[in-house]
Amino acid sequence: MTTDTPEIRFARAKAASHSVARLTSAQKADALDAIADALVANAPRILEANAEDLERGRADGIGDALLDRLALTDDRIAALAQATRDVGALADPVGQVVRGQRLPNGMLLEQVRVPFGVVGAIYEARPNVTVDIAALALRSGNAVVLRGGSAAQSSNAALVAIMCEALGSAGVDRDAVQTVDDFGRDGANALMTARGLVDVLVPRGSAGLIETVVTTSTVPVIETGAGNVHVVLDGSAPDEWALDITVNSKTHRPSVCNSAETVLVVRSAAERLVPAVVGALQAAGVTVHGDETVRGLADDVVPATDEDWETEYLSLDIAMRVVDTLDDAIAHIGRYSTQHTETIVTADVVNAERFLAEVDSAAVFVNASTRFTDGGEFGFGAEVGISTQKLHARGPMGLPELTSTKWLGRGSGQVRA
Amino acid sequence: MTTDTPEIRFARAKAASHSVARLTSAQKADALDAIADALVANAPRILEANAEDLERGRADGIGDALLDRLALTDDRIAALAQATRDVGALADPVGQVVRGQRLPNGMLLEQVRVPFGVVGAIYEARPNVTVDIAALALRSGNAVVLRGGSAAQSSNAALVAIMCEALGSAGVDRDAVQTVDDFGRDGANALMTARGLVDVLVPRGSAGLIETVVTTSTVPVIETGAGNVHVVLDGSAPDEWALDITVNSKTHRPSVCNSAETVLVVRSAAERLVPAVVGALQAAGVTVHGDETVRGLADDVVPATDEDWETEYLSLDIAMRVVDTLDDAIAHIGRYSTQHTETIVTADVVNAERFLAEVDSAAVFVNASTRFTDGGEFGFGAEVGISTQKLHARGPMGLPELTSTKWLGRGSGQVRA
Repeated sequence: MTTDTPEIRFARAKAASHSVARLTSAQKADALDAIADALVANAPRILEANAEDLERGRADGIGDALLDRLALTDDRIAALAQATRDVGALADPVGQVVRGQRLPNGMLLEQVRVPFGVVGAIYEARPNVTVDIAALALRSGNAVVLRGGSAAQSSNAALVAIMCEALGSAGVDRDAVQTVDDFGRDGANALMTARGLVDVLVPRGSAGLIETVVTTSTVPVIETGAGNVHVVLDGSAPDEWALDITVNSKTHRPSVCNSAETVLVVRSAAERLVPAVVGALQAAGVTVHGDETVRGLADDVVPATDEDWETEYLSLDIAMRVVDTLDDAIAHIGRYSTQHTETIVTADVVNAERFLAEVDSAAVFVNASTRFTDGGEFGFGAEVGISTQKLHARGPMGLPELTSTKWLGRGSGQVRA
Repeated sequence: MTTDTPEIRFARAKAASHSVARLTSAQKADALDAIADALVANAPRILEANAEDLERGRADGIGDALLDRLALTDDRIAALAQATRDVGALADPVGQVVRGQRLPNGMLLEQVRVPFGVVGAIYEARPNVTVDIAALALRSGNAVVLRGGSAAQSSNAALVAIMCEALGSAGVDRDAVQTVDDFGRDGANALMTARGLVDVLVPRGSAGLIETVVTTSTVPVIETGAGNVHVVLDGSAPDEWALDITVNSKTHRPSVCNSAETVLVVRSAAERLVPAVVGALQAAGVTVHGDETVRGLADDVVPATDEDWETEYLSLDIAMRVVDTLDDAIAHIGRYSTQHTETIVTADVVNAERFLAEVDSAAVFVNASTRFTDGGEFGFGAEVGISTQKLHARGPMGLPELTSTKWLGRGSGQVRA
């Protein structure tokens, strides 16, 4: 038996990345179609592996919600295959000329998109992320090293094996998809310190996971995820928009990062809006955690503490606070926001423009639901994640965000004088 | 006396960053003009502080080269003032619309450039970097926290004090420029872990400094600098271009990162080119470190070892190796390059395109000197540094590379269905 290490797999991915980077757009689409076909053809094998994970999950008592996220079915596998084909049909960012000019000395200079090389991903729970990230990485010309959650280990192992076989059958280096799941915690640690072999690392999962990766990794990280998202109801907010946008931002899909967690109501609108908004939220099954003023204006409101302003509930709960002015609302956001998405409901153009200019978040909206911060809604066709950092990518990331650039210069003997 | 900490200064910079981000282009240009005026008006004060650094440097025996880099004169201060004015005249990247579209639901979505917020810089030796980086950061709407080398501590303290006074006189929050030099090593460590207060960190200096920052910092880093740069002489390389480009790439300014360190000669051109190229390099004062084949074809060549292939000489030394094929040249580069800049001299269009496609460096040239990888040559007007990483910025960085983006959405009550 040969000694295998995470580093050997990173080196294989690196070696494979060179040929993957040079595949044509059509070759990459064919490879993703081959993966989609293989997923469907091997559904029984995937379900068998998934059953092992589910059984272990039940024995460990991980709870119904997690079990549901973990579970694969024929329908879910078919959907995963279709999503893989869809990624293959997306525009290929590689080779796109970002800027270009002829220099005064006659040299032609162009900045073109190139793959990163090797993309690393550390994530939790859902096994479909394994295929999802691999497809996005391959479409953008990258090799990928995956580290999924231990709860999905058997499912992920089957999915990776099937993807590698499919790559081989499509004439693509099967080393382009690697997993380090079987090394457990050591695999994750190796991935976070694989500087020079892994070019970028994308963590996807809980705030705790992301924090660990961000503070540990020496590989450049793109931070995704946490969303303590705010809705501001300005003094001039029209009633209907205030109700619709607040309720939609909170209840359309409470468990995701772009759902609202706090409503800030400017005092001049409090009497007019608080009772109706609280009522509409409660009618939608939301528990409102309010400050004293809110509790004076509406019934059945749970007292809010400072902790509520910091909390990303990801559930049918929302915090509500009355602030004196728009400045106070912006200051509250500056203090508590995770800089993901904030929206203001207002009829006042000056306040709208101030909010857009002064709130420093990845997405800042006027009179629209926070739920629009999404790669699909932005027209990207797919989403790698939503970056909450400022370096490289901010907000929803599409395929171009999985590329770097290089400068190409074509001369005819130019030297510097 | 109040207790002062690096964190208090980071928080002041963060607070100031909000107002700096909203300055108009004209206000920022005026502030930089005010700094330029103040530098000239306070030249005696700067020279006095610089004299302290020089005296300490001489006592510590830091050597003539370093003393020269450390020394300021009236002329150097005037040049620094002019460079500051020039940065003020550059196009302001803030507010630039990068992409925009109306979504199917009628919402107007735009991605606009915004400042990072607080830019941190850790650098060595030359005190002019203090003003240089502050000017670039301010022009792009950022506050800045500086950590310069201890050798220039007095000069840097005077320069920062003068810049802050000038900002105040121009009506800009003087907290926008901060230094943590006086905290010594603790200041640098605090800066590298100021996640949440400092948005991006740019190290400038030796490979050792950059490595320390990259592996220690939890703040996102833009890595700059190291250049183990290659010139490839293809079998078809025209004699004149081979000589001109090799000599220019090595000798035009040997101490900088875009100067060539290794020449790879494809075997079919070795007899024709090696004697002439070695002769031309030697005539320009270069010591050639060659492999056995090179030593068989030219006189006075020092034997090269594997270490030479890894060495960034930054001096009038160059390594030279004969390789069998272009593939071998590309493989050598893949193994030893720091992915900064490589060039090929060739008359063969297929080899030219292969080199451009397959060499994974920030800048890849055909028939041009490696010395062109430079913000000034690329038309950026100024250079923050040359990024050798793939995330966010790659190659010469101009003002836009000191910005992030955010997504602005203007709706009229849109919610997700």
